[in-house]
Amino acid sequence: MPDKVLVYSRFPKAQLIRFGERYELLNAAGKRVDEAFPAAELADVSAMITAGGTPLGADAMDMLPKLGAIVCYGTGYDGVDLAAAAKRGIAVGHSPGANAASVADMAVTLMLASVRRLQVADNYVRSGDWAGARPSPMMRPQAGMRGRKVGVYGMGEIGRKIASRVAAFETEVGYFSRTRYDLPYRYLPSLEALVDWCSVLMIAVRAGADNTHVINADVLRRLGSDGFVVNISRGSVIDETALVAALTDGVIAGAGLDVFAREPHAPDALTALPNVVLSPHLGGHTLESHVAMQDCVLANLDAFFAGRPLPYKVSGT
Amino acid sequence: MPDKVLVYSRFPKAQLIRFGERYELLNAAGKRVDEAFPAAELADVSAMITAGGTPLGADAMDMLPKLGAIVCYGTGYDGVDLAAAAKRGIAVGHSPGANAASVADMAVTLMLASVRRLQVADNYVRSGDWAGARPSPMMRPQAGMRGRKVGVYGMGEIGRKIASRVAAFETEVGYFSRTRYDLPYRYLPSLEALVDWCSVLMIAVRAGADNTHVINADVLRRLGSDGFVVNISRGSVIDETALVAALTDGVIAGAGLDVFAREPHAPDALTALPNVVLSPHLGGHTLESHVAMQDCVLANLDAFFAGRPLPYKVSGT
Repeated sequence: MPDKVLVYSRFPKAQLIRFGERYELLNAAGKRVDEAFPAAELADVSAMITAGGTPLGADAMDMLPKLGAIVCYGTGYDGVDLAAAAKRGIAVGHSPGANAASVADMAVTLMLASVRRLQVADNYVRSGDWAGARPSPMMRPQAGMRGRKVGVYGMGEIGRKIASRVAAFETEVGYFSRTRYDLPYRYLPSLEALVDWCSVLMIAVRAGADNTHVINADVLRRLGSDGFVVNISRGSVIDETALVAALTDGVIAGAGLDVFAREPHAPDALTALPNVVLSPHLGGHTLESHVAMQDCVLANLDAFFAGRPLPYKVSGT
Repeated sequence: MPDKVLVYSRFPKAQLIRFGERYELLNAAGKRVDEAFPAAELADVSAMITAGGTPLGADAMDMLPKLGAIVCYGTGYDGVDLAAAAKRGIAVGHSPGANAASVADMAVTLMLASVRRLQVADNYVRSGDWAGARPSPMMRPQAGMRGRKVGVYGMGEIGRKIASRVAAFETEVGYFSRTRYDLPYRYLPSLEALVDWCSVLMIAVRAGADNTHVINADVLRRLGSDGFVVNISRGSVIDETALVAALTDGVIAGAGLDVFAREPHAPDALTALPNVVLSPHLGGHTLESHVAMQDCVLANLDAFFAGRPLPYKVSGT
């Protein structure tokens, strides 16, 4: 009989097919575990699959007395209470780097679309305003990419892939991260120094308690009126209220956002703005990165059930 | 007294400021020259500024008996009847490479937005469909960029800048042009071979009579159902009717278009499609490329009025 695996978050069915071929899935699909399944059914569940951003605390873990492994689908694990997992000796795995290329591509897509005002341009053609020669102040020539200073905040696998892509656009690339690396980009010693220097801020930092709302009104003011913010990390890194105000008041020029403070909700004040490009947290959602993420999930589950350490363990757990 | 320069096409006023500081401008603004100005006024006009795509034949040239120089604003000169100009001994200048980085950036913007379905994604967030968890078949994961074969048709200055940008996205880059160059990309010996090989076709060829409608139904069929077309060259290169059919019937996956067959008109059948990204021929329209194009226009005009050869002459004229 196949081992049981609880599916904690809500996933599209297509993303679970390969897991279902190897394990018996108990799909809670985002519902409370103890409401989705009777305690007897949960008694012998020892592994679960979750989306890293879904809150998963001690209370949920305690509904699964035999839980030994939490396997995050994707690179993030910010929703998982790592201390609670450690206390119970639960291993936590994820999919490091599996979606890095796709996420970095999305970051650059949002950067280019914001700087070149692609949504406004597309609408200008579709609405017939172009054919009617109706003037649009949003369509006046803007500064493009060449010669721009692009700052990357966070220099993990995604940050590096963003940097190497952005450098191809004849830009200057700088970065700030806790660690200074041997990389061909300018290192700025703080987030403040980075935003003082750059006019496009690419947020690629791993979200955590130490960087919640670190992109605040002051940081945005320093970025300046020709400045753009692109976020493919987590919504929590930005003070979303301050961002909406900065975009509305022209404190910065625009933003490209794949992540939001309270997904799947994007505030009306944000969705009404013309100088933003928005995507529904799909940075990592390409076919090839799903295959790579599923490979990591399966490798973690297979190792766990074989009694071996997780090959893709969250570092420090 | 400053020399007179006729402005043949319709330009935004902001783009003419620097020319007006040095020359007396007669702005026909796209109207017939002999309707815009009396013959006496035109009698001593010896130079004109035009947009390279605006049709400019012998009839218009004949309205200016002293015409000695046609200076195109931008890199293109496909609207100018070069044979008629040569017959009258009129020098033709343009702005080679001045907007290459901006145009290449736009090509990559359209490529990424098409492949990652950015317009659909942005609309999915803004409409509230994401917040309402309403399923959208267009939002299913698609193949992204990594490992894709990207074909560049035309390897001039813009084609090279497209290729170097695209290569940064972990793709394979190939190209077809009349000349094979010493470049780190795969050379394909024909357009057919290129589209058989690639799944993204970037059109960067200089438009001319030899490549009108060269992107036809057969080429699109060869590109395939996971294929994308991006055009920043001229609308004439594509059989637009065949393209609309291929996009409607799923013969190809999508397209990103900055240029159209009859600008500023984009056909309704095209603007109604969800799998296209459209922009109103603004590839070259960044502040920095306008400055660079104006530098070329002024250098050409200054040289002409000083009796020197145009420094940025159209090759072969």
